[in-house]
Amino acid sequence: MQSGEDKLIARYFKPLATADGALGLRDDAAFYSPPEGHELVLTADAIVSGVHFLPADPANCVAKKALRVNLSDLAAKGAAPAGCLMTLALPAGSNDSSSNETWLDAFASGLKADCEHFSCPVFGGDTVKTDGPLSVSIFAFGVLPRGTMVQRSGANPGDRVFVTGTIGDGALGLKLLREPARKAAWSLSDGDAKHLIDRYRVPQPRLAMAAAVRALASAAMDVSDGLVGDLAKLCDVSGVSARIEAKAIPLSSGARHALSSEPALIETIATGGDDYEILCTVAPDRIERFRELATAADIGVTDIGEILEGHDPPRIVGADGAALTFARTSFSHF
Amino acid sequence: MQSGEDKLIARYFKPLATADGALGLRDDAAFYSPPEGHELVLTADAIVSGVHFLPADPANCVAKKALRVNLSDLAAKGAAPAGCLMTLALPAGSNDSSSNETWLDAFASGLKADCEHFSCPVFGGDTVKTDGPLSVSIFAFGVLPRGTMVQRSGANPGDRVFVTGTIGDGALGLKLLREPARKAAWSLSDGDAKHLIDRYRVPQPRLAMAAAVRALASAAMDVSDGLVGDLAKLCDVSGVSARIEAKAIPLSSGARHALSSEPALIETIATGGDDYEILCTVAPDRIERFRELATAADIGVTDIGEILEGHDPPRIVGADGAALTFARTSFSHF
Repeated sequence: MQSGEDKLIARYFKPLATADGALGLRDDAAFYSPPEGHELVLTADAIVSGVHFLPADPANCVAKKALRVNLSDLAAKGAAPAGCLMTLALPAGSNDSSSNETWLDAFASGLKADCEHFSCPVFGGDTVKTDGPLSVSIFAFGVLPRGTMVQRSGANPGDRVFVTGTIGDGALGLKLLREPARKAAWSLSDGDAKHLIDRYRVPQPRLAMAAAVRALASAAMDVSDGLVGDLAKLCDVSGVSARIEAKAIPLSSGARHALSSEPALIETIATGGDDYEILCTVAPDRIERFRELATAADIGVTDIGEILEGHDPPRIVGADGAALTFARTSFSHF
Repeated sequence: MQSGEDKLIARYFKPLATADGALGLRDDAAFYSPPEGHELVLTADAIVSGVHFLPADPANCVAKKALRVNLSDLAAKGAAPAGCLMTLALPAGSNDSSSNETWLDAFASGLKADCEHFSCPVFGGDTVKTDGPLSVSIFAFGVLPRGTMVQRSGANPGDRVFVTGTIGDGALGLKLLREPARKAAWSLSDGDAKHLIDRYRVPQPRLAMAAAVRALASAAMDVSDGLVGDLAKLCDVSGVSARIEAKAIPLSSGARHALSSEPALIETIATGGDDYEILCTVAPDRIERFRELATAADIGVTDIGEILEGHDPPRIVGADGAALTFARTSFSHF
């Protein structure tokens, strides 16, 4: 009596539904209670083939990216993942051919690995057919002590601006995937090229920094649409301005090589997006502790500038002290 | 500094984000705490243009359907809506033309009306471009006293099988939209035809029955993929069988006319789906109270058959006492 959809769910997604409240995905809905004294943090992001990932990207990476862009939001808010629901729109006919069973096998396997690694089991979802490109919507929820979610709105003049990890790798990785000849033009080693591409395909949500952000940051968000534009959003909601130093932006080895070969890439690095690093502001008297916790979490954090009074858009200042100007400050679909 | 996506969210969806924890949709995530002693019920459903609704369906109806198919799940589990998140995939270029601003205006207006009517504010979401058809994924969450979610798995032999409202209207409405000549063939009045079409486009989640289902049903689910197939799922998870009477299935005036003109439509009615009624099982000693609560809620409930021992698929029995057989028992995309 099982329909094709029931079989697909039972085969691929039931193994990911390890929480009691998920009822093995054999019900209309799931149930969940946050731990005593905690509240939920809710986020949703969709990724579409050809827009947020490339049709040729490995299926396990597509699954990981779909989940991790959501986990990155939870990390920036100071929350620990608790679960997710997913709607998956598959191109018509895609589960009929063995090649697409292979795709679904790899997709489910990538998702399972991440659900386990990040303690974020699947609580439900929906699988539908579409005439269009494959897309994945994930709704993730996390938990934190009630009232402690770190918002974008708390930055104060005098706070220092920090980012985790390195900036620009994802946007450069996408350029490399689209124009493989750039690898030679940028003098990249195989390892550097692979690193940039991996950073585009599989973001690294900085969940290990969630507790430090919650305890010490005055404002935080994740960098998904580009550092400059995302900082502008944080400043706008906080009612402040900022000044960051282009040379302080932390770069990977690959990004450094690319930038020295093609200095105009500073725009891609600073505005291209797909970073999934945490951008946060920290009051001066909390910086030492923030750095200690980052060291303990084994995650690099870099001071890239300062929050200022006023309502001007943030400035990014070059080596000569002059503000850089960009054609656009962040990625937008619209 | 606002991107096109920020403007779109601020214009269309911020007015729907009335909960404090939604932070006016100006953050990466939202926060939410269920009331003391309560837990969350979580569900997610996606609808795709050309699959779950017709491209020509009014935009306000598309929004309402996207939300209501989720609210129907919450109702069947005994939960009250608390909020939702939405990912909206818009065809490329769709917000550039004034006609598509008109579409988004109507979509947001329909969603706002329902968010208010059902006390289900928007807590977040994501808006993306797609080369494919428009699709809407909604993740809805409800609340109920901890441990009281009504599952599919509790049906016992001897329980009576109930459905709310009427069955088959949505599937017949879709047939009418696809083949308008059937209106005459089925001898439908304008009012009956409009009723069937409205039932396809705008489901009526039976939230007024949630408390009664929670208090009195042994098992429940919503009928979305077809009565016979959905009952089979409930029986399978409960480890029971069932027998329902075709003539007991509650029909609207339009469905009665259609069926008397074309008796083979019993298959569409019993297996077509798009009903969004509650299917539940009630022990004999609770039926009187169940009917009283339904009357108080002003929602029709109909006893359509009985839960039996065994593991045979449920039978639907015709006027001659013989079991009807159908080519398929429910709608499936796969």
